[in-house]
Formats: sequence, structure tokens, C-alpha cells
Amino acid sequence: MDPYPKPLRELISQLKRLPGIGEKTATRLALHVLGEKGDLAEGIANALKGVRQGIKLCPICFNITDKPTCVICQDISRDRSTICIVEDPSDVLAIESTHIYKGLYHVLHGLVSPINGVSPEDIRIPELISRVKGKDIKEVIIATSPSVEGEATAHYIYRALRDKTHVGKVSRIISGIPMGAELKYMDQATLASALRYRQNINE
Amino acid sequence: MDPYPKPLRELISQLKRLPGIGEKTATRLALHVLGEKGDLAEGIANALKGVRQGIKLCPICFNITDKPTCVICQDISRDRSTICIVEDPSDVLAIESTHIYKGLYHVLHGLVSPINGVSPEDIRIPELISRVKGKDIKEVIIATSPSVEGEATAHYIYRALRDKTHVGKVSRIISGIPMGAELKYMDQATLASALRYRQNINE
Repeated sequence: MDPYPKPLRELISQLKRLPGIGEKTATRLALHVLGEKGDLAEGIANALKGVRQGIKLCPICFNITDKPTCVICQDISRDRSTICIVEDPSDVLAIESTHIYKGLYHVLHGLVSPINGVSPEDIRIPELISRVKGKDIKEVIIATSPSVEGEATAHYIYRALRDKTHVGKVSRIISGIPMGAELKYMDQATLASALRYRQNINE
Repeated sequence: MDPYPKPLRELISQLKRLPGIGEKTATRLALHVLGEKGDLAEGIANALKGVRQGIKLCPICFNITDKPTCVICQDISRDRSTICIVEDPSDVLAIESTHIYKGLYHVLHGLVSPINGVSPEDIRIPELISRVKGKDIKEVIIATSPSVEGEATAHYIYRALRDKTHVGKVSRIISGIPMGAELKYMDQATLASALRYRQNINE
């Protein structure tokens, strides 16, 4: 006989759908929510609905936003002649947190992956081409991850931009040893890239 | 300028209210919910509401339940002459998972704590006394944690049961070395208890 009341069992199984949340953590969180005297359950439930109902994609760059266009496309101080292409909205947030990049973005929402049946038309590549075509874009930075699919997507985008637009320059983020990592634990490809693209030391 | 849309920022700050969930984990979970194509957000939101609306306390033992009385109080096969006293519903679940105990429970929903202004009347001790009084209860097992507050609560309950009821026996769970733990890392009080209450080895 299951001593867990059904609504509690249901909450545990729903929380287990989150990444990195197993049976034990889900149970702990569910019991915490149950025992909490305040508005925690309502707060999270409403915030979840708010995210699903209030967040749309920017019609220009397909980043997430709760406005007609996203804060980055809206920002007149940003460099409109540079576009950085990323896989997901979370990549935009990661790059923004560096405070280094001042151009615009284009969010693909996926990567080209023949094995999973994802073709260039399934992600926001056609929208990228028509966005860039005929415009005076100085540089497109392809910032997909250096995985097999990320590289294939980068390659496809590079050729499409070259053949169908007049972009000044197409660049690609570089692989190297992460800050704080140890050289001896790095894989060959990362180490090779870090060596190949080595920089002169400027004092 | 914050690149996070407001509803996403709100979800992150709500998720951070959960125990063990920091800024990074909350962001990761929120972005996962946002990117998920299925009904994850709705599923969790509804389960949270279900828990808050559907779960009540059993009027007999104050364990959580979605029925008029809890599954344990309902179960006619359980020993009605033994009551195990615990702090929280999660303790009931922990003890049930051992499949060793076959009696009933009484959930206090807190511990006596003068320092936090929690007196015996603030937790379910009066209800315990009136539940036990005049009944033929053979044994009450006090299973509060071996903390300062747990011990104080156990002591208070012991005296109240002795003075106001006719319980056959009042027992207390024992402290000892947890399974798998190493002797050398145990605190003195635990080690002393494990030695004092040592058991004969039965082959």
C-alpha cells in the first residue's frame, strides 16, 4: 500500500521530469512545498504559467521576449551590422553575461541533424537568410557549439550566407582550453585548436 | 539591461525558493521548462495546485491524505494498540519505507522549542493525549529525531502520557551508528549510545 497521497505522488512524478531531478530530490522538493506555510506552490505554479503564456519569440531574431520585439533588437545603442548566430535563447543569455558582445543575435532553435531528421528548413536558417539578404551586414559570427551537429550547422550556414547574401565576413567562435581547466585533461581536438589558433602575447 | 524577459526572471526567483536550488540550477530548470515542447509547465503547475488543494490532514493521526482519513488509519490489518509519534509526514513515509512497523502514527507537525516560541499546545500533543486517554494502547513509540528539540519533545510527551493516560509502555527510538558509516567519524554521543544499547549477537 502506497502511503503517499495521490496528489503528492503526482507532484513527485511531475518534478522528476525536470533535468537532474531524481526520485529522491523530487520527493524532498514535493514534501517541502507541502509543508511550506506561505505561497510557494502558488508562486511557482503562477510563474510557470506566466512563462508559457507571457514569453514569445522576437519576430526579428527569435530570441525570447515578453515585448513585441526583444530587448536586444530594441536597443538602439547596439551594433546593427553584426549578427551572432546561436542555437538557443540560453546561449544569448550566456553571451550577454560576458558583456563583450554588442551586436545583434539570431536564434536558430535547434541544430541541423540529419540523424534526428532536422533539416536546415526546420530551424530558423531561411529566416536568417532573408534577414541578411540585401542588408549591409559587416559580420556574422556563428556561435553554435563545437559539436558534430554544431559544426555541420555552422558549415551549412557559412555556405548559404556566401551563396545567397553579401555579408562582409563570416566568423566562427574558437575552441580552446576553458579558463581554470588543466591542460593534461583536455581532449586532443580542443588542445589542437588551442595550439593552432594561439595568440601573440601582448604586454 | 537585463536580457531575461520578466516572466522568466520571475520563474527563476520562484524556483530559487526551493531548498537546495540556487541561481544557476533555477536558471537551468526555467530555461528547460521554457524550451520544452510538451506539457511540462502545465503538468507541474497543476500538480502543485493539486497538492495544495487535494491534500488534507487525517483527523485521527494528522498524517497527510487525500481521503477523509489516511491510508494507514483506514487499514484494518494494522495494529491499533501501537502508536508511533513523529515530527512530520515525511517521517511517516521514511518509516513506512522500512516495512518493519505495523502500528499507527501520530504526526506532531513540529517539535517543542521554547527558543522559537513553540509550546506543546502549538503542536499536536493535546490531540495525542485525548486520542490515547481511556484507550487500551499497549505501546507508544516516540520517534522524534535525536536533536535537542526532539529529545525535549520526547521527554515532554513521556511525562504527559505517564501522568494523563494509561499507556502500557512508552519507548524511544535509539541512536547508533548508521549502516555503512565509519566508526571513526562518529560523534561521541552517537558512539556512546551505540555502546550503551549494544545487543547480544543472535545466530
